[in-house]
Amino acid sequence: MSDCIFCKIVAGEIPCTRVYEDDQTLVFMDIGPIIKGHMLVIPKQHHDPITETPDDVLGHLIAVVKKIAAAQKKALKCDGCNIIQNNGVCSGQAVPHLHFHVIPRFEKDGHTWNWAAKKYDDMQEMKQLAEAVASALTP
Amino acid sequence: MSDCIFCKIVAGEIPCTRVYEDDQTLVFMDIGPIIKGHMLVIPKQHHDPITETPDDVLGHLIAVVKKIAAAQKKALKCDGCNIIQNNGVCSGQAVPHLHFHVIPRFEKDGHTWNWAAKKYDDMQEMKQLAEAVASALTP
Repeated sequence: MSDCIFCKIVAGEIPCTRVYEDDQTLVFMDIGPIIKGHMLVIPKQHHDPITETPDDVLGHLIAVVKKIAAAQKKALKCDGCNIIQNNGVCSGQAVPHLHFHVIPRFEKDGHTWNWAAKKYDDMQEMKQLAEAVASALTP
Repeated sequence: MSDCIFCKIVAGEIPCTRVYEDDQTLVFMDIGPIIKGHMLVIPKQHHDPITETPDDVLGHLIAVVKKIAAAQKKALKCDGCNIIQNNGVCSGQAVPHLHFHVIPRFEKDGHTWNWAAKKYDDMQEMKQLAEAVASALTP
């Protein structure tokens, strides 16, 4: 897409610090890292959001995500990682071109997510939401 | 694994509020939702972390994640979603059995992640990390 920053990066019109690429995929450094070493895995073709992305594209992307996580572990000696894929402005997605964040994590890196877990009013409320979503599943 | 909470859920030894299942995958409600409707997609076989999980298992899981995100959108009328897969206690992972969080998001749901982006000292620092990880990639 002509007005998409990530498409321009793929096309070489905007520079990036490249980590890996193959026919379908580009991996480059996030310039605003949560933890230094934070990378983005994107499809070269424009897709967005995840619900509009073909399964085979997603399957390849998640295999590259795994490959990057393994290389980060080996090279950076990190203790773990966050894999994050946001959809929609409300979710925190900044660029509307499908991307997976691969964020290396260290035991004392000082970062905590705002994991503010809520509670259901009762089991019935949770069950009704489960049933509503189950009913909307496509085969 | 005998001491794994999610393996016990798969085995039916611990109850869950089920949304979907197939031969390889179980989807159930997170009892501590970030946003109500928050679901977990897990492989029935025990795998952990992502770097030790076969590509074909990951490919199937991400296709189910997409299916769940689409059904949430249809049933809950959410505006977006977060897909999160944490690896290691340092990352925030609470149960060491691979799982993808699928969290429905709404424009005014009041949740914000602690997306505290840092800065590299200079381009050289970022480039060195990229090169170190690129060198550690397995073919």
